[in-house]
Amino acid sequence: MKIGILGSGAVAQALAAGLAGHGHEVMLGTREPAKLADWAATRPAVRVGSFADAAAFAELGVLAVKGTAAEAALKSADASRHLAGKVLIDASNPIADAPPEQGVLRFFTTLDDSLMERLQRAHPTVKFVKAFNSVGSALMIDPKLAGGRPTMFIAGDDTGAKATVTDLLAQVGWDAADMGGAVAARAIEPLCMLWCIPGFLHNDWVHAFKLLKP
Amino acid sequence: MKIGILGSGAVAQALAAGLAGHGHEVMLGTREPAKLADWAATRPAVRVGSFADAAAFAELGVLAVKGTAAEAALKSADASRHLAGKVLIDASNPIADAPPEQGVLRFFTTLDDSLMERLQRAHPTVKFVKAFNSVGSALMIDPKLAGGRPTMFIAGDDTGAKATVTDLLAQVGWDAADMGGAVAARAIEPLCMLWCIPGFLHNDWVHAFKLLKP
Repeated sequence: MKIGILGSGAVAQALAAGLAGHGHEVMLGTREPAKLADWAATRPAVRVGSFADAAAFAELGVLAVKGTAAEAALKSADASRHLAGKVLIDASNPIADAPPEQGVLRFFTTLDDSLMERLQRAHPTVKFVKAFNSVGSALMIDPKLAGGRPTMFIAGDDTGAKATVTDLLAQVGWDAADMGGAVAARAIEPLCMLWCIPGFLHNDWVHAFKLLKP
Repeated sequence: MKIGILGSGAVAQALAAGLAGHGHEVMLGTREPAKLADWAATRPAVRVGSFADAAAFAELGVLAVKGTAAEAALKSADASRHLAGKVLIDASNPIADAPPEQGVLRFFTTLDDSLMERLQRAHPTVKFVKAFNSVGSALMIDPKLAGGRPTMFIAGDDTGAKATVTDLLAQVGWDAADMGGAVAARAIEPLCMLWCIPGFLHNDWVHAFKLLKP
């Protein structure tokens, strides 16, 4: 697939390199492409462009910017035009600028209104699917953990979009668990808080969640 | 141990029967002990009394009432006196009276202020430990699931109290993951929302979370 990733940080870079390694054509979209010139020079399989370039290039998009920058990135990408009708994986989290409290991140959202719901309302033609928000960049692609494949909790209003993301996740080492509509981002985004706690408290960043069944 | 359980619903009954089955002395405390007479008659190992009786009886307490009733139950139990210095497992969740939205529970708390933090502030002499809040009553004691022992995410301000709860959890089939102070209930309580979604959407209530490590 042609995958356009909005973002230039650790998550965007890990997903770009990892998805290219699985044979996808990847373009990374960023506000300042020049900043990624050195990184891109060693990765010929990954193109770099503007937010709008990456969105236009994408058959499937990935939103991998800070939550506080998500709306601006989508505007800059002209998402309602360039991503209309396309799947957009939302890997962002509503992390506030305030520091963590005893290792617990502060969010700028509420339990009644998640970040992805806000973004979906602002861009109704884009098929948002929450994924990759509750694991660190080092484990996003082909995670190796004791106890088997971890579970990626996903949510979104479009069933076909979730099937596409489920297939992509299976390809890169994850079982997907479909939690329903975009509203379920209210329960999935706080997993980022939980996931980060051992990191902030004990510098332990190597873990992932799994949903056990009978 | 002498375990006093505040509550009379499915969670309280499952914990009472299950913990008694593991050799603990259990008293179940409820507003109307007469209502539990039939249930108690078939379980000679479980005593039934008032909230205050159970709190006074307890070496370790369990709060297993609806979140909306938690503060009233603690008041009725005279918790600041009868549970002073004792461990209190908080299995409650801040579920609002409003119905779930597409399977997603509504909470009356925020991401900045969890139910357990509120209860801990109101009863500073009680050693609250969040546990048993993100799994159904049928799986609380000796869960049998593919993929091994599930993980109970726990939190609380008292390290010794968490060690006691970790030992109790191990006895009944769970690995505990200590997420730090009471503030971490902000991240653990929303797991209840996530856990319930497959139930509300697909009547699938048989699952539990596991934290995978390297």
